[in-house]
Amino acid sequence: MREFILLARKAHTAPFKLNDLPGAGRMDLVARCITAAIFISEALRKDVKFYAVLEGPPNPPRLITLETSKLRRVYPDERNIASHIRIALEKGLKLRYGQEIESEPGIRIAKRSFEDLVKEKAKEVQTVYMYKNGIPIEEFKFEKNVCFIIGDHKGLSKKREIFLENQGIPKVSLGKVTYLASQVIAILHYELDKRGI
Amino acid sequence: MREFILLARKAHTAPFKLNDLPGAGRMDLVARCITAAIFISEALRKDVKFYAVLEGPPNPPRLITLETSKLRRVYPDERNIASHIRIALEKGLKLRYGQEIESEPGIRIAKRSFEDLVKEKAKEVQTVYMYKNGIPIEEFKFEKNVCFIIGDHKGLSKKREIFLENQGIPKVSLGKVTYLASQVIAILHYELDKRGI
Repeated sequence: MREFILLARKAHTAPFKLNDLPGAGRMDLVARCITAAIFISEALRKDVKFYAVLEGPPNPPRLITLETSKLRRVYPDERNIASHIRIALEKGLKLRYGQEIESEPGIRIAKRSFEDLVKEKAKEVQTVYMYKNGIPIEEFKFEKNVCFIIGDHKGLSKKREIFLENQGIPKVSLGKVTYLASQVIAILHYELDKRGI
Repeated sequence: MREFILLARKAHTAPFKLNDLPGAGRMDLVARCITAAIFISEALRKDVKFYAVLEGPPNPPRLITLETSKLRRVYPDERNIASHIRIALEKGLKLRYGQEIESEPGIRIAKRSFEDLVKEKAKEVQTVYMYKNGIPIEEFKFEKNVCFIIGDHKGLSKKREIFLENQGIPKVSLGKVTYLASQVIAILHYELDKRGI
């Protein structure tokens, strides 16, 4: 299983306009990351879970989870992915903290914080934070199940980075270039595919 | 300089609806590839040329060229990229074969075939075709300037593959997984970045 946690600090947490994804707190970035994570050519990857933590207005936080083994009618274009996020946000408007519902097959929405999710994951599986000045990925040994934490265009706050450190989560780097989050995800899949993990 | 040629066999060649990029012959795929090719986090790459050969209805072929050193007001979301393609198609409706115009800074449109473009590139720079059963990329030696040929979701026709072979263009592979074209581009940048090319 490959898992990805995207922290989208500005992404809106109520239904938004599909014609202006950047205006919805860079929902385009969230959608693009999901496409990079769940698709290969003409198919969904089998064992991927994608967690998008949305922290923009008006109802933060919202955690949207996609599980490829159960997804239906999802296509790689940003607008399609965003339309599924929109449905989840609509159905999840009135969630209490900790509550989670299924909005569509393979898609769930919860009111749940980044910290809670990360603590849970770090207990369950090898969890790493993608960070420019981390351990070079070539030198890092991945387990069969791994969860990657990825920041959006704003990165993670200092406070959050300290939180990850306190959880004992290692930092892994793709090198000197700071890639788009969606590019990071494509590259991570490639690195694991090469190693046959 | 890194150059990419995307052959988009179905992509429409007249202005299309921005609300339905998949319906415009998978224009979402074209836009996503452009984003993967020209952006890094918060910036454009400096030395990238992207060629999209559109061969869908009603006016094939159209060749759209983006040159990152000259681009202005381009953003990574699919809709923004597609809107620039749309402007180019609008301005390029009446081109004669071989004619080329600049539609916006850093964006040109020509009526020109895949074969003509490839022949020119193969003379100028190291040109390779990304192909599942090609030479493993780890074993391939890249020059400083390189041009990658990438198929869309339909791949290249047998006839085109023979054409590339006749041009002496080597095939290079990213391994067993068939990635989305946009993922291929992200991975290629990463491979070249790692090697400091």
